[in-house]
Amino acid sequence: MTPQKVALSPASPAPKPRSNGSPDNPLAAELTRLLGPKKVLSNLSERRNYRYDAIQFGATPLAVVLPESTADVVTAVRAARAAGVPIVGRGAASGLSGGAAPALPGLVISFTRMTRLDIFPERREVRAQAGVVTLAVTEKARPFGLIYPPDPASFRTSTIGGNLGENAGGPLCFKYGVSGDYVRALEFVDADGEVHELTRDAYDLAGLLIGSEGTLGLITEATLRLTPPPKFTRTLMASFAEVGACAEAVSAAIAAGAVPGKLEFMDHACLNAVEDFLHLGLPREAGALLLVDTDGDDLETVEEERALVEAACLAAGGSVRRAAGDAESAALWQARRSVSPALGRIRPQRMNEDIVVPRSVLPEVVREIRALGDASGFHVVQFGHIGDGNLHPNILFDPRRESPDAVHDLAHRIALVAIRHGGVLSGEHGIGTMKRPFMREAVDPVTLEALWDVKRALDPAGVLNPGKVLPEELADEAHP
Amino acid sequence: MTPQKVALSPASPAPKPRSNGSPDNPLAAELTRLLGPKKVLSNLSERRNYRYDAIQFGATPLAVVLPESTADVVTAVRAARAAGVPIVGRGAASGLSGGAAPALPGLVISFTRMTRLDIFPERREVRAQAGVVTLAVTEKARPFGLIYPPDPASFRTSTIGGNLGENAGGPLCFKYGVSGDYVRALEFVDADGEVHELTRDAYDLAGLLIGSEGTLGLITEATLRLTPPPKFTRTLMASFAEVGACAEAVSAAIAAGAVPGKLEFMDHACLNAVEDFLHLGLPREAGALLLVDTDGDDLETVEEERALVEAACLAAGGSVRRAAGDAESAALWQARRSVSPALGRIRPQRMNEDIVVPRSVLPEVVREIRALGDASGFHVVQFGHIGDGNLHPNILFDPRRESPDAVHDLAHRIALVAIRHGGVLSGEHGIGTMKRPFMREAVDPVTLEALWDVKRALDPAGVLNPGKVLPEELADEAHP
Repeated sequence: MTPQKVALSPASPAPKPRSNGSPDNPLAAELTRLLGPKKVLSNLSERRNYRYDAIQFGATPLAVVLPESTADVVTAVRAARAAGVPIVGRGAASGLSGGAAPALPGLVISFTRMTRLDIFPERREVRAQAGVVTLAVTEKARPFGLIYPPDPASFRTSTIGGNLGENAGGPLCFKYGVSGDYVRALEFVDADGEVHELTRDAYDLAGLLIGSEGTLGLITEATLRLTPPPKFTRTLMASFAEVGACAEAVSAAIAAGAVPGKLEFMDHACLNAVEDFLHLGLPREAGALLLVDTDGDDLETVEEERALVEAACLAAGGSVRRAAGDAESAALWQARRSVSPALGRIRPQRMNEDIVVPRSVLPEVVREIRALGDASGFHVVQFGHIGDGNLHPNILFDPRRESPDAVHDLAHRIALVAIRHGGVLSGEHGIGTMKRPFMREAVDPVTLEALWDVKRALDPAGVLNPGKVLPEELADEAHP
Repeated sequence: MTPQKVALSPASPAPKPRSNGSPDNPLAAELTRLLGPKKVLSNLSERRNYRYDAIQFGATPLAVVLPESTADVVTAVRAARAAGVPIVGRGAASGLSGGAAPALPGLVISFTRMTRLDIFPERREVRAQAGVVTLAVTEKARPFGLIYPPDPASFRTSTIGGNLGENAGGPLCFKYGVSGDYVRALEFVDADGEVHELTRDAYDLAGLLIGSEGTLGLITEATLRLTPPPKFTRTLMASFAEVGACAEAVSAAIAAGAVPGKLEFMDHACLNAVEDFLHLGLPREAGALLLVDTDGDDLETVEEERALVEAACLAAGGSVRRAAGDAESAALWQARRSVSPALGRIRPQRMNEDIVVPRSVLPEVVREIRALGDASGFHVVQFGHIGDGNLHPNILFDPRRESPDAVHDLAHRIALVAIRHGGVLSGEHGIGTMKRPFMREAVDPVTLEALWDVKRALDPAGVLNPGKVLPEELADEAHP
């Protein structure tokens, strides 16, 4: 997947990067002395590859460390502290909120070499280092009849450390929970380079680290819970003349008692982008497409749940197609998995939101965002995990012809729709830099201050991934 | 259930309580002025009822507030701050770790009148005020085909606020998760009397509040997730000559793929106490009794899982009895539910531990604790949620004849067995005052300092339930 990056609200502009580990790059030189040359990237051409995630460019790091152990992470953190530079952790950089894109030049710690993965089938657990690829966990677990359910779209490349940093979700998370729900224990390195081992009793510091995007500590290892996969899965596709009707069908199906494993939707613009790309025979005229998997260990219940969803879709005026078998089911799901590359063909860049709203207000929210998009003149598409109300409105744009400020303004108005309907800014991508400016509307000032208190308690010097999650305090605010 | 309380490591002795809301009890007088007389208890005889939980006596509060709204809580907190006294939240006080027993005289806020409970079936959610009784949530949800799974033993009297404060578990938590896993949103009042509304994105401050025993904030309301109950349940009882064999059977059954809804055990001493009490026909000669429910929506899978458990029990040398129907199943479970009152007949007081160890080390841990108990001369019984390695070793004693110091010493040695085997101090009761002295062995000093940093960030003045969860910092330490 080609990353489509935006740099909408850049932090202070990166100073002119210094050259490689020579005396005028003392941090890289010191790290090379401490860790050896193989674990440190100091050439500008190499460092430039570590300034972005899948959606946003940031500052070029002064040095990149590729640790092979927690001890290497400790060494790197201490060196960065001595040099007085910020520290940004990074997995596969497939994140969609700017979490891994450095706001300021400093040290990037890229965890991709920390890939140790041990399985304990009798405990239904793995112990994974931060750089383990998400898919590798299920691959390791499958021979023991187990899986690791969290399935972010980038699960073939994303890492456990990155998933936990953003508390990543995916289609299966509606029924099975997000990444953090599978964490039994964590190891992390704090801003002083101290190593902590956390279980989840007493104060749940592990839960606080999860989703904090490396702003409170750097997760180095985790103990993850595994589960047996469901025995049966059944797939259904429904199309609707209009997006609100699709949202109504979902609300009705769930209210009637269906708990599908996956419940994904695409609007008209989104499904046509996919059809242009893959020619799967999707109904181009439809206003919205719904893809549903029901799953479980009892085939009768699984079929019953599919029937409940089907009835709700028909009642909302939809047309329904049941996948006859695994091959047809796989073909239907290919449509959903191809959304990102398909959208990249329409405009070179996109602003990808990640709002979550109560299911009961889905029809209004989807319609309001559709209306905002139509009125804006931008190409706006909507898709997402509609089962838990997690929508991804995407604004597609070409920065050569369209104003990033106008994109940002529209994104802001979309976020406000979610907040007005009792929703939140992030379901599974994190806040990062993307949604950070909207946090003021999402969180009361007094609660924002409590979050800042927690941040200052764990990172008093503010060196861990500055410029993410929390908006600056009012006194320091310098929003463009 | 008669509370059996210990006061093993009392905080500073309570000063002589002042009398009711007269000028020499200015806090009670001020609260009465602010909230009216119906919401404030100021008589000594009334206040004395609010100094304990189900296991420990604490200090008599200076005043007790019975708020009817979050606004009342805010008023009470501000008045306590103005008076410079600590604040302790309290639900039904059925907790087993001393969490609600005030360490110092101050204000107790008893949430039992905050019982508003609204259900949103289409979202599968309730919004519950802190004083809602746990059982009431499922009673409200059942007509909609839904339940609230967390089932602490005291669920008929315990409150949601107390359950969240201690992150309470119960038998069903092996398969279905603890209280905190069901929280979608929280409202809490902080140490300054500010009200916060939290969802679970960005920093998971809600997760930090859950299990913090009112030391970081007072939970006033929560949005809780509901689930459909399993369609089928099958019960099995197995008896073993020896406790280690029972633990081996559990480890083997789970490794073979069974995920029972409940997996409870009692040792010889415990099952004989129950048999003396109820005359159910339990096998008195057995060294350990195992009670298992398998459940799910597919009867075949439920039966298969029961067969897996049965095979593992037989392989470990156990004898197995399958409940023929619901009546027999209910009779078997009555045995487990009657443990607490049965133990109260043996000795007037008990120290109830709540360790959790990896399932793979259960046989050794259960045997080591049995040996410690036998060598100690105390009456030690073991029971608990053996499925997730959550054991409740109980030391039964008579404070008139037996030394609380010796009880405390034995409890400490039992906690050390858990820690040595990679376990933790609390599965579902919280740390409270009971296990607070053992936190130093369970948590590294550097991580303890991080937990203190979080505590100081959210409660800088240290007024929220002082003396709980975290051991004093070394400088202030005055452990008896």
